[in-house]
Amino acid sequence: MALPLLPCFSRTLVCLLVLRAECLENGLARTPPMGWITWTRFMCNQCALGLDENCLTQRLITEMADRLMYDGYKAAGYDYVIIDDCWSFYYRSQGKLIGDTRRFPQGMKAVVDEVHGRGLKFGIYTDIGTKTCGGYPGSYGYYKTDANTFADWGVDYVKVDGCSADPKQMDDLYTEMGEALRSSGRDMVYSCEWPLYQQKAGIMPNYKNISKTCNLWRNYDDVGYSWDSIYDAVKYQAANQDVLTEVSGPGAWTDPDAIVAGNYGLTIEQQRIQMAYWAILAAPMIMSNDLRSINRKSKELLLNKYIISVNQDPLGLMGRRLSKINNTELWTRWVAPKLPDGRMSLAVLVHNANVCGGPSRVVLGISDLDLDSPGGYQVTDLVQSNTFIGVFYPGHSITVTVPPSDLFFFKATVIKE
Amino acid sequence: MALPLLPCFSRTLVCLLVLRAECLENGLARTPPMGWITWTRFMCNQCALGLDENCLTQRLITEMADRLMYDGYKAAGYDYVIIDDCWSFYYRSQGKLIGDTRRFPQGMKAVVDEVHGRGLKFGIYTDIGTKTCGGYPGSYGYYKTDANTFADWGVDYVKVDGCSADPKQMDDLYTEMGEALRSSGRDMVYSCEWPLYQQKAGIMPNYKNISKTCNLWRNYDDVGYSWDSIYDAVKYQAANQDVLTEVSGPGAWTDPDAIVAGNYGLTIEQQRIQMAYWAILAAPMIMSNDLRSINRKSKELLLNKYIISVNQDPLGLMGRRLSKINNTELWTRWVAPKLPDGRMSLAVLVHNANVCGGPSRVVLGISDLDLDSPGGYQVTDLVQSNTFIGVFYPGHSITVTVPPSDLFFFKATVIKE
Repeated sequence: MALPLLPCFSRTLVCLLVLRAECLENGLARTPPMGWITWTRFMCNQCALGLDENCLTQRLITEMADRLMYDGYKAAGYDYVIIDDCWSFYYRSQGKLIGDTRRFPQGMKAVVDEVHGRGLKFGIYTDIGTKTCGGYPGSYGYYKTDANTFADWGVDYVKVDGCSADPKQMDDLYTEMGEALRSSGRDMVYSCEWPLYQQKAGIMPNYKNISKTCNLWRNYDDVGYSWDSIYDAVKYQAANQDVLTEVSGPGAWTDPDAIVAGNYGLTIEQQRIQMAYWAILAAPMIMSNDLRSINRKSKELLLNKYIISVNQDPLGLMGRRLSKINNTELWTRWVAPKLPDGRMSLAVLVHNANVCGGPSRVVLGISDLDLDSPGGYQVTDLVQSNTFIGVFYPGHSITVTVPPSDLFFFKATVIKE
Repeated sequence: MALPLLPCFSRTLVCLLVLRAECLENGLARTPPMGWITWTRFMCNQCALGLDENCLTQRLITEMADRLMYDGYKAAGYDYVIIDDCWSFYYRSQGKLIGDTRRFPQGMKAVVDEVHGRGLKFGIYTDIGTKTCGGYPGSYGYYKTDANTFADWGVDYVKVDGCSADPKQMDDLYTEMGEALRSSGRDMVYSCEWPLYQQKAGIMPNYKNISKTCNLWRNYDDVGYSWDSIYDAVKYQAANQDVLTEVSGPGAWTDPDAIVAGNYGLTIEQQRIQMAYWAILAAPMIMSNDLRSINRKSKELLLNKYIISVNQDPLGLMGRRLSKINNTELWTRWVAPKLPDGRMSLAVLVHNANVCGGPSRVVLGISDLDLDSPGGYQVTDLVQSNTFIGVFYPGHSITVTVPPSDLFFFKATVIKE
């Protein structure tokens, strides 16, 4: 979702003001990308008797693009349709990747055109090594060829996995692939898994280089329909937040994997918590779910424009954990609007991460949140339709009661005096 | 819940027939105990401003006993009210344990009487070592004294933790405590945590001894409002099912901790899966939740008489995992009714444990389930009010489609020819 920019919110200016490391300047992903991806929900599924709606085919992509267009997701900002692993044949044809015609009988260009025809953008997947995680051809040795193939098809976003490459070589390989994408002549968001494989191999990722090369970087395991998988990914971002907040910004975002709201195995509260964390983290909101049969509450959550607005905030400042006390997490992110004196608004997430006991009562001092504008702050509940809670001034405090596995996610909007 | 026994289902006979290790013969817990316990939901909570309903007090116990009596739980079989840790003062009085008068102003006997007055049974907690996990006095050195105190109060169930004792000595200590309870002259269910602390200390528990001494044995970590905590406890039972099925039976049951339906952090499907596993495992169904504010679906689940009937099956045969293929678990438990030729009915649990992808299709051969009665089986859906699915014969198969984090739990009732 592209929020209108006030004149004083020049993104370039913000970049300079916070002395951020050099931003990736391919002009893309000025806010975290939003969209839909095949992987978590549809994986490499073959069509099976009686489960036809469950397999990775052109029909699936078309139907999901329709849902994005007709059900309000595109209007809310979800505009990428991304095919993950298992779309290609098991071999190259004349050196080029080609789509599996059993899945995509008219070829990949036709799929891209269908997506573009709905006013959406198209993303595809490859691997920096010799094979993808699913065993299909990787791009190693073919970076220019594949970048040009993707450009020819009209691809707008390339996710590059790292299943069959040496993590020690990834600094070079991902840089080389980035150059290939740039020199293709087509604007393509570059989504890397470079730090994920390096940290698993015990190598400290060089996030400054990564953020200059990639628009997005996966740095932790896949999330699934498992609360622990989501929370583990969040904890990794927290443990590395000093460097991540330094290198994140317009064009360069940390990526803790897909939004899984609307699937299985998570309560609606857990789905909300994931959305809130992704908003605070300025992470891409790429859903993986079945939009044809999604339940009402999950759909409402995915379309919650107040949470999306935090995620897409034009200041582009990644949030961070302020504290974790008694298993209660407190995270904040500075967001617009911003006063001429430099004071900003704040998104605040209180997450009760306890797995036993009852609700916790948390008292938040306005001043402790570094909110010091004498004109005060209008506090609204981002989950509950931005409901007005009150006006608070420095010295005041907000008391919230949060049950286990639940959240309170609010915005303190700075008031113009 | 005491199910009526058909004459041919003599429990002693069953015990002999399956060549089970000697059953604990204190005459108690002939089926897995059912009830309510303070721990997971109310822990050691002190009363805090604005969260009065959240603390461990006599009022809490009375209100929960009322809910058990008036809301159908007692009628469904939940008849124990158990206070876990943190009920006592920090010191003994004249060598005896006494209740914390800030929590229980009229003393523990009055609490027991209130529970008994509602036709319910009362359980209490202590530790085999010097201190409880919460730091209150343990029973070490006072086994006879404490057993007699509990008997004087009219206690019906004693849970004995193992926080401050040497796991290597537990074979002796838990045996000694068991003798103290027996010699008190009052029938008290003996719930041990003996194997839990031993397996954590790397000692292989002697389940034959444990099952001759304890009515219940906790052998894995506490469960919480976390699916992984529940599933980990199930996986431990599966890994040890050969010995556990051998030693389990009327009077002696494996205990993977509380039923947490009606709290936080679990979908209704995950709550159902826990209930189904506890039914298959013949595990005690001791809930820990707030029955005053429980949601409708969780309440319906807890009161599901068909699932309870499997849990309380008079044959008392613990079920087991038959297979785990593609992350789909298949478990079965032999249950009544039983034909004169010895053929029994079967409860069957199919659990899709995947955390990604879509629904799985599973084909179950009737014969593969060892169902060979020529008269066939009536198959009913235990979760959905025992809905009739069909009559199946050896050679037939049942095809079920189960989404991730969901289950299919059915009973194949042997048909009299």
